[in-house]
Amino acid sequence: MNKGLLVIISGPSGAGKGTICKRLMEISDDLELSVSATTRMPRTGEIEGKNYYFISEGEFSKRIENSEFLEYANVYDNYYGTPKTKVLDKLREGKTVILEIDIQGALKVKNTHPDGVFIFIVPPSIRELQSRIINRATDTMEVIERRMQCTKEELDYAPEYDYVVVNDSLESAVSKVRSIIDVEKMKSHRNIDLIQGIKEERA
Amino acid sequence: MNKGLLVIISGPSGAGKGTICKRLMEISDDLELSVSATTRMPRTGEIEGKNYYFISEGEFSKRIENSEFLEYANVYDNYYGTPKTKVLDKLREGKTVILEIDIQGALKVKNTHPDGVFIFIVPPSIRELQSRIINRATDTMEVIERRMQCTKEELDYAPEYDYVVVNDSLESAVSKVRSIIDVEKMKSHRNIDLIQGIKEERA
Repeated sequence: MNKGLLVIISGPSGAGKGTICKRLMEISDDLELSVSATTRMPRTGEIEGKNYYFISEGEFSKRIENSEFLEYANVYDNYYGTPKTKVLDKLREGKTVILEIDIQGALKVKNTHPDGVFIFIVPPSIRELQSRIINRATDTMEVIERRMQCTKEELDYAPEYDYVVVNDSLESAVSKVRSIIDVEKMKSHRNIDLIQGIKEERA
Repeated sequence: MNKGLLVIISGPSGAGKGTICKRLMEISDDLELSVSATTRMPRTGEIEGKNYYFISEGEFSKRIENSEFLEYANVYDNYYGTPKTKVLDKLREGKTVILEIDIQGALKVKNTHPDGVFIFIVPPSIRELQSRIINRATDTMEVIERRMQCTKEELDYAPEYDYVVVNDSLESAVSKVRSIIDVEKMKSHRNIDLIQGIKEERA
């Protein structure tokens, strides 16, 4: 059986990768979304094993020592990590596994899994991103300005990825990500068995 | 402006690449199908410049000498070739150019244009291919057997291509080829200008 496909959905913060992944999972029944482990407290409505695996700092440190994460990061004093065994087991079963991670995490995964499919989600424009953030109205103008600058710098990582998807509308972006997955499955090196089957009349 | 995309649609004879290209062009208004030059006589209904450029053997030889073909081949005493200048001009204009050529031609184009998108069309099974050919009822069983054997050998070239598309139904195969083209346009190295535009608020 062919090994599964590892798909990394990443990009600057605010580009909408979380919303895209959520919608992608709603319309797909052949994809497995990797659930991260975190040391932060569950928010209202968050479900253990669905949104996150909630674990203690001690447990997280132990797992780092045992190399149990594909990648991990510390964000605002909380740890977030992608459990390695679960992802590798699913890949071994031939499944398509989706990782929704930030740019630093994606670059780490690329080092260990260069055969993954790396998708970079970008906002249609910095101005559009700015208006989305202002509409949320939770940040001061200074914070917003700093985030804009940060996003501009993050855009420089695009060439490290295989594909760029502009998040101009949710449905269009989700459909593009879905097409990328379908097309990657047609890559010739992933279809050696198929060709052999046709030759041997096993089709 | 970004350089255009060169898409090579190829595969074993009888796999249906001609029918797929014809249908693909009907549903697409952003693709340019390369028209081959040939020394064979026009068949009834064939239009100069649409189906082929019909030229003399002397003219064909001259063009070979002047390296005016991307690739050419001699099939049953007739020459067929892909005019180089027309293809390169369209690529320079940023257009997507489709070449429908046999395996030998595709391998030649891969040597000079490794950045092309190489799609290998295969029949769902050898048996299916056989029944299609028998239904045409123009060949003897011996000829059919020889063609089956030839197709099996031709399938070994699949790994030289980027993608494998199974021609199980025309509409499904055309839709897969169309998706491959759309997804290839999202490759990050083809979107350097787009990223720059977002950074500079030109979006």
